Amino acid sequence: MSLTEQALAYVRAISPYQPGKPITELAREMGIPVDSIVKLASNENPLGMSPKARQAVEAALAGVERYPDQFELIAKLAARCGVDQNQVVLGNGSNDVLDLVARAFLAQGRSAVFAQHAFAVYPLATLSIGGELICVPAKDFGHDLEAMLAAIRPDTRVVWIANPNNPTGNFLPYPEVRAFLEKVPADVVVVLDEAYNEYIPPEARVDTAAWVAEFPNLVVCRTFSKIYGLAGLRIGYGVTSAAVADLMNRVRQPFNVNNLALAGALAALDDDEFLQASYELNRRGMAQIVAALEKLGLTYIPSYGNFVTFKAGDGAAVNQKLLQQGVIVRPIGGYGMPEWLRVTIGSEAENARFIAALEKAL
Amino acid sequence: MSLTEQALAYVRAISPYQPGKPITELAREMGIPVDSIVKLASNENPLGMSPKARQAVEAALAGVERYPDQFELIAKLAARCGVDQNQVVLGNGSNDVLDLVARAFLAQGRSAVFAQHAFAVYPLATLSIGGELICVPAKDFGHDLEAMLAAIRPDTRVVWIANPNNPTGNFLPYPEVRAFLEKVPADVVVVLDEAYNEYIPPEARVDTAAWVAEFPNLVVCRTFSKIYGLAGLRIGYGVTSAAVADLMNRVRQPFNVNNLALAGALAALDDDEFLQASYELNRRGMAQIVAALEKLGLTYIPSYGNFVTFKAGDGAAVNQKLLQQGVIVRPIGGYGMPEWLRVTIGSEAENARFIAALEKAL
Repeated sequence: MSLTEQALAYVRAISPYQPGKPITELAREMGIPVDSIVKLASNENPLGMSPKARQAVEAALAGVERYPDQFELIAKLAARCGVDQNQVVLGNGSNDVLDLVARAFLAQGRSAVFAQHAFAVYPLATLSIGGELICVPAKDFGHDLEAMLAAIRPDTRVVWIANPNNPTGNFLPYPEVRAFLEKVPADVVVVLDEAYNEYIPPEARVDTAAWVAEFPNLVVCRTFSKIYGLAGLRIGYGVTSAAVADLMNRVRQPFNVNNLALAGALAALDDDEFLQASYELNRRGMAQIVAALEKLGLTYIPSYGNFVTFKAGDGAAVNQKLLQQGVIVRPIGGYGMPEWLRVTIGSEAENARFIAALEKAL
Repeated sequence: MSLTEQALAYVRAISPYQPGKPITELAREMGIPVDSIVKLASNENPLGMSPKARQAVEAALAGVERYPDQFELIAKLAARCGVDQNQVVLGNGSNDVLDLVARAFLAQGRSAVFAQHAFAVYPLATLSIGGELICVPAKDFGHDLEAMLAAIRPDTRVVWIANPNNPTGNFLPYPEVRAFLEKVPADVVVVLDEAYNEYIPPEARVDTAAWVAEFPNLVVCRTFSKIYGLAGLRIGYGVTSAAVADLMNRVRQPFNVNNLALAGALAALDDDEFLQASYELNRRGMAQIVAALEKLGLTYIPSYGNFVTFKAGDGAAVNQKLLQQGVIVRPIGGYGMPEWLRVTIGSEAENARFIAALEKAL
């Protein structure tokens, strides 16, 4: 057999993830200066990183020749979430946390349930370990939890839920999620991915990490890549029962999170001012963009994240016209939504650039 | 079935990796101040990181809210190695590169061949994907390539080779490795892990990356964690055929390497002065430690890395006595060598601290 044929069949069948186009790539392709490009494609924080995190990262540079030690950050997250330290698992971004769940519980002959239009890493993590995908049709672009419950088979080991969902921005009311957890078989892991958690209005937010005491099969997954502005540092975490955390740690690369991410995350957790400013900027930017979409008569999905998804008609064509003007948004044809585009809420000026470019593109 | 029982049996059977004891951990345990501890346990560079890399990392801090883009570093590594860009795969440390090979080619019902006393991540990467291990007895603590060749079975998909080997420091002459590659079935992947490559005397070093043109099943694996002093940043790479790289990329997390590691590695590649200083410091420190071991009448394994492994008698007891004096080395009972200890070559002062502590401990 040829070398390639010896690779696992399910690996050969994977289509790699399509990331948001990097600014440097568009600059290379179109010959546009980097500074004139606006990227609203990857739900990054327009304020950058927290100043406190930056200070901490600079200080940690002095020890970058050392292998990382996760002790301090795990202790802090555990204290914050009111769980034991052996219930927190750190990841190289929350993508890594999702992967650890897949590697501990999925394999050929096992299935995972996820929702149509849900985050692309759920199918990727499932398929890259040979698991079978059960895709449940969306309800108003969001998760249909009743249908997802009904879709669970005897061989189902994981259910993937994003709340809010990316790329649609839908939000599942907490009582619905809780009711779902009460009905799911206790030996099926439920991943509740809350990457956009901090963009939910505080008065509506519930700390689901507290639920792991009741539901040992629950993995609450969060990230420092979004409101904390540390996407480039790669750090996220999962909170779960000690039993599930132990299994995830067995397949975790021992040094999966870098020194600077650990230091940055530790400090970012204490930067309430930066968090508040990021939240407010997003709220205002969301209003700015939504008003423009309404003015243009475009349909959009009300979003609880730092992005909004709207119906552009021919998504690929409009995207191309935006790119030509140096504006990068996210086409989501890969999510079965070729008519739609997802735009990240940026700074006021970036949003204005996007709105002007969109008007011209339509 | 219980939740834990639903985890994959091969995952439940894994014993997690035992890293070198972090300085902060010893300080917590023994109540010793951090500054008074000497850590020679993880083959880290006593000179820290390259000043050029540090500058580049500081500059890259400005864009840390963005997801990383691997384009530039891949282009540079490809040019250096004389291969196409689609032949270079970046990893979150070279551990990640090893893991990608395992995930693309190993599974239950497939086996991997490795040498007794070889790097612990080979069995870990193999077992964590359900592969079977074929451990070939060492020859003078190093790889016995003839026996490894004979151990390959029809279900063998990967052979792991470390050169120099960690934790023993053995070096395989290049002609032997080449002869091995010529005899291995073409559909078995051979991973040649060269984490310590830059510590080999330059006049004896051969650029094995050039061999991938002849051997599409060869994956040459290197790291920035050792002589480049970037262990805490987590970055390594593999050079292989386009076909194997493509398969590895399918199971790679899309943002597996962080922004700062990319920037640091890019600059570190150009810091010849730092590389030379690190090499020279290691050469002198090796002479210093080896002379002391000889004076103490201790057996050691001649090493081509930045560490040396010596016979301490009761390794655990001597290690404990070193720890009490604030000196951390690496017990390697987990490698089937309970009588031995591995010490990293540090600065002249660190080496002297180790030697004095060892004299006292014996």
